[in-house]
Amino acid sequence: MRKVRVSIVGGSGYTGGELLRLLLFHPGVQIQQVTSERHAGKPVSRLHPNLRKITRLSFCSLEQLEACDVLFLCLPHGQSMHHLPQFLEKAERIIDLSGDFRLNDPQAYRTWYGQEHNHPEWLSRFVYGIPELHRERMRSARFISSAGCNATAVILALYPLFRQQLVETDITVVEVKGGSSEGGQTPSAASHHPERNDVVRSYKPTGHRHIGEIEQELGLSPNHRIHFSATALGIVRGILATCHLFLKEPLEEKEIWQIYRQAYGQEPFIRIVKERRGIYRYPEPKILIGSNFCDIGFEKDNRSHRLVVMSAIDNLMKGAAGQAVQAFNIMCGFDETTALEFPGLHPV
Amino acid sequence: MRKVRVSIVGGSGYTGGELLRLLLFHPGVQIQQVTSERHAGKPVSRLHPNLRKITRLSFCSLEQLEACDVLFLCLPHGQSMHHLPQFLEKAERIIDLSGDFRLNDPQAYRTWYGQEHNHPEWLSRFVYGIPELHRERMRSARFISSAGCNATAVILALYPLFRQQLVETDITVVEVKGGSSEGGQTPSAASHHPERNDVVRSYKPTGHRHIGEIEQELGLSPNHRIHFSATALGIVRGILATCHLFLKEPLEEKEIWQIYRQAYGQEPFIRIVKERRGIYRYPEPKILIGSNFCDIGFEKDNRSHRLVVMSAIDNLMKGAAGQAVQAFNIMCGFDETTALEFPGLHPV
Amino acid sequence: MRKVRVSIVGGSGYTGGELLRLLLFHPGVQIQQVTSERHAGKPVSRLHPNLRKITRLSFCSLEQLEACDVLFLCLPHGQSMHHLPQFLEKAERIIDLSGDFRLNDPQAYRTWYGQEHNHPEWLSRFVYGIPELHRERMRSARFISSAGCNATAVILALYPLFRQQLVETDITVVEVKGGSSEGGQTPSAASHHPERNDVVRSYKPTGHRHIGEIEQELGLSPNHRIHFSATALGIVRGILATCHLFLKEPLEEKEIWQIYRQAYGQEPFIRIVKERRGIYRYPEPKILIGSNFCDIGFEKDNRSHRLVVMSAIDNLMKGAAGQAVQAFNIMCGFDETTALEFPGLHPV
Amino acid sequence: MRKVRVSIVGGSGYTGGELLRLLLFHPGVQIQQVTSERHAGKPVSRLHPNLRKITRLSFCSLEQLEACDVLFLCLPHGQSMHHLPQFLEKAERIIDLSGDFRLNDPQAYRTWYGQEHNHPEWLSRFVYGIPELHRERMRSARFISSAGCNATAVILALYPLFRQQLVETDITVVEVKGGSSEGGQTPSAASHHPERNDVVRSYKPTGHRHIGEIEQELGLSPNHRIHFSATALGIVRGILATCHLFLKEPLEEKEIWQIYRQAYGQEPFIRIVKERRGIYRYPEPKILIGSNFCDIGFEKDNRSHRLVVMSAIDNLMKGAAGQAVQAFNIMCGFDETTALEFPGLHPV
Repeated sequence: MRKVRVSIVGGSGYTGGELLRLLLFHPGVQIQQVTSERHAGKPVSRLHPNLRKITRLSFCSLEQLEACDVLFLCLPHGQSMHHLPQFLEKAERIIDLSGDFRLNDPQAYRTWYGQEHNHPEWLSRFVYGIPELHRERMRSARFISSAGCNATAVILALYPLFRQQLVETDITVVEVKGGSSEGGQTPSAASHHPERNDVVRSYKPTGHRHIGEIEQELGLSPNHRIHFSATALGIVRGILATCHLFLKEPLEEKEIWQIYRQAYGQEPFIRIVKERRGIYRYPEPKILIGSNFCDIGFEKDNRSHRLVVMSAIDNLMKGAAGQAVQAFNIMCGFDETTALEFPGLHPV
Repeated sequence: MRKVRVSIVGGSGYTGGELLRLLLFHPGVQIQQVTSERHAGKPVSRLHPNLRKITRLSFCSLEQLEACDVLFLCLPHGQSMHHLPQFLEKAERIIDLSGDFRLNDPQAYRTWYGQEHNHPEWLSRFVYGIPELHRERMRSARFISSAGCNATAVILALYPLFRQQLVETDITVVEVKGGSSEGGQTPSAASHHPERNDVVRSYKPTGHRHIGEIEQELGLSPNHRIHFSATALGIVRGILATCHLFLKEPLEEKEIWQIYRQAYGQEPFIRIVKERRGIYRYPEPKILIGSNFCDIGFEKDNRSHRLVVMSAIDNLMKGAAGQAVQAFNIMCGFDETTALEFPGLHPV
Repeated sequence: MRKVRVSIVGGSGYTGGELLRLLLFHPGVQIQQVTSERHAGKPVSRLHPNLRKITRLSFCSLEQLEACDVLFLCLPHGQSMHHLPQFLEKAERIIDLSGDFRLNDPQAYRTWYGQEHNHPEWLSRFVYGIPELHRERMRSARFISSAGCNATAVILALYPLFRQQLVETDITVVEVKGGSSEGGQTPSAASHHPERNDVVRSYKPTGHRHIGEIEQELGLSPNHRIHFSATALGIVRGILATCHLFLKEPLEEKEIWQIYRQAYGQEPFIRIVKERRGIYRYPEPKILIGSNFCDIGFEKDNRSHRLVVMSAIDNLMKGAAGQAVQAFNIMCGFDETTALEFPGLHPV
Repeated sequence: MRKVRVSIVGGSGYTGGELLRLLLFHPGVQIQQVTSERHAGKPVSRLHPNLRKITRLSFCSLEQLEACDVLFLCLPHGQSMHHLPQFLEKAERIIDLSGDFRLNDPQAYRTWYGQEHNHPEWLSRFVYGIPELHRERMRSARFISSAGCNATAVILALYPLFRQQLVETDITVVEVKGGSSEGGQTPSAASHHPERNDVVRSYKPTGHRHIGEIEQELGLSPNHRIHFSATALGIVRGILATCHLFLKEPLEEKEIWQIYRQAYGQEPFIRIVKERRGIYRYPEPKILIGSNFCDIGFEKDNRSHRLVVMSAIDNLMKGAAGQAVQAFNIMCGFDETTALEFPGLHPV
């Protein structure tokens, strides 16, 4: 069978590197080109030292980009939509990992990104990239927009309950805790090791962009809000979302189990983690490093209608490159888990 | 002036060691004895290696405990109330750092500690140990019960707003993130370094004991709840409490500033931290290591009535030993900051 | 083709878990049994939470062990030799991951393990488990003894130069820095997170057991020593060995390159890492987590005959389970890299 | 008594901030000015958030610098010597924390700094800043040059044995492991948290500048070398030097004890740490964070003449600002431990 020819635009960053790592081991893929304006000509392993001896690919510039079957875009926000016409000439299918095409509504885009969208007519043509919600549309999709990492963790945690309208939606509080790789590859005062090491830093108590995606995908009615805060930790990879919901009516733990099992029982990358004993009783991002799993657990508060739902992912995998490869597999008819089998390490 | 003779009961643990460290540098204190049943006879520096060359004290057993002026109790929960009659014979004044005397109400004790209190009649005689709330009572107190570490962070964050009844109390959600020293000195599977390093572990999504103290001190009306979850991190010291409040009526940021300034403007150990720029815009436990400060900040959500209040402390200092020394200073008439001047380090 | 039936004895520890993880994805292997006396009956994922949804295997007890093709032994030191006769009845081929059969000489065993060997006659029947040194013997071997993790890093770093007798052997100084997973799965005071986090702890300045293996494999003449120290760090996985050699005669960097390229140029799991620019100029264990690579680099001291050779591995992979699978692949005629393709992550 | 008026030139960096923190609590010091060209006009607590509520000082520019009693220079290497004439007009006494005046010999300066010294005639007028070696000269000194952080750890470890000529000097191998604060405050690709976290990075296998100071202070004969390598770790503060010496003649451990006790028994900031049991048997930088101690320990190799001497410091304290304050105390006639009493934390 002919391999799918894939190119990665913007391959020098963390997401691009992770995508490259995954696709290099994908039996149905031939990586054609990886672009980087700044590093054109250099071997990709210069930027991604884990790929030494794995590949001899070098970066090329965007100008040199040739036609291919599928184009992955790993550009900074704003760039994908800027270059969209150019990319459309190169490939039939595009998977964008930036935030440019996540929101369906141009006005929502304006609200969360503080600018007008260059190609608002394209927003509705991109399928939102969470396979667990949009698998069917992905099968025939030409354009997929990978979800935000925090949004992925939160949406997967909340979707089964919100879909069934079991939640007092307007008082849902979500606290996401994440690692430093979320911030990308560019050094800054905030990412300087002596300043970032061991932090528990409230970097977005309110107003985080991913709220827009979350509210869209959970189908919140107007004027209802997800109350979202993000805290930066001293880890590199990993997200834990702790979601505090208030149930409209009391549910037994068993019933909640059933709801999640119905929603996710057949999902290859979702595990319900809720144990009575042991250390890893609930989702823990640490053991997901490098894996594409989203682990979800919950605990009912005996004193109130509160339900705490926790979900954990590796932000660069299920929250970015892994999710994109999963969508790619669906779109191209591969087994959904291809190149995503790595289960994570223990201990680590 | 005669020094105050102080003894520490249960001095081999982390709280006891920290207390000892502080009191060794207190100009008005003479440390008389430090007990440890397990380590009686050994130099205290065997357990607290930071005190090498600082003190030649050795542990003695409880049986050898002599009369003194002030007794600090750093025993595991349940032990202080068990031995109370014995301790009353030794010292006029007692500062207990366990959870035994934090709750005023025997029924609340039963709820949160799952057992009957040995001396329920004593519960009301202990002053709850947060100086910012009970300074006046402390001046003449004989018995003080130091507050729980998580409770301290949360109460200090919320008190000014709750006192003025500005908050929809029943939907307050609090997420506390803390380090491994909270768990004390005894190794366990959960504290084993390969398992604990870099965790973001939901260890008490609901039902944490400190909720009892928090609701008591914030004066919640019956049937109102603090919705509290605790997450364990891979740091050793430090707590960040992120509190999501819903204001009854909208307040300007200026007004909130004013409320906090009124409440804490004169407090030696509370800093309002809220900056527009820089890395440390909000409270950050990392720079509080070793200090007795509680840093408090807040951010208003533009899209709702939500207010996010964050507070940070060092759990072994303001959350335990530092708080106890502060209370001791008040009780004994010392300047409140004596032996608590260390400002914390940067970077660290 | 019939799959090779494999059982793991002592599968609850870190090495056993890692082995299990690797073999579960080995296309030529069927895992038959995994034993654990303490956890018999429990699902393996209870101990190895990364394997949830990957396998439904449960632990069985040693008593239940059935015949199989290859037996991996992951027992504490001393147990493999104790049970050897029993194991020989179960399998034609054995790969032992303990220290029991690493030394060829019973007297060396006594020196380094402080006891007599139970079956000294077996010592010479085990092939020392570093494929880069003993590949040919492994092809027909029935018994392989995996090398110690520190020993692996040091031997691979030094072997090419020692083999050619280019080094003043008696003044070679080696400093190995390693993570907490080396210490195994049992909690202790030393592994308690508040005590172990961020340490730089001289845990074996002299007298480390792995010296015996190193001197044996490097073929040191009697009375010549490797001067070895081991320092424990606050990381979980990873070893960096820094080896200070004194060359008998000056060599150009080019010549040293050539020596290493000759020795390792065809090796699938050894990379020579030595770059002029960038962050990862030399071997760095961090990017090897989960991979089977051993990265080796060197720098000549312009002021003396000293050559600093550095090597990095993941102690649970190339230093234990990965190395064992590599040896297994050779012994059973599989492609040497089967199940060992994971390249490591960046960033992590 | 009139307070000593002190100014800090270059107060925005880590060393300057640490110095400022210490001096703010020095009872005999009045801090007059703190300069920073880049941050002139801003409160010092903007850069040093641990000093919030501790001081209201703001940075001024160098141009505004007034006369004072003692000037501390915390400038990047090369700047102190460049501005020397200007500084000499402002203060009678100068303590320089850069590398500009550490070497006595202009040729050594050229070798290690790769340039000519601007004021070679001044090199001999600065006293090298380790009080344990040069206390007497410091009492009457006007100019002190603080020692390099790695150099401090190594010199203090080796001095007693080298002074008595007990060591085969030419084959001494030293491995220093240090944290990220050594690299200063400027973000770079290498200090970017995702890249720096958890590293064990060989950043200077050979050719480290501090070798020059070490060889000078240990009085090495020409052509004899200290074989020094430096490895960067993922901690923020702390240095552990592991020194491998070869004794000319065998010494009993007792004799070595005696040599160190003779050398350092009266030293307020040196502790000999060597215990048979417990976790902290040897020097451990972790428990020195914020303290001015240098802990030194050793272990004899039973199989050879090797002696392993380990020393640990906080690089910003005993390795920089703490050492400078200690020297200042001696120079100005204060008790040597003034403002340096903080013993370090446990756990941390």
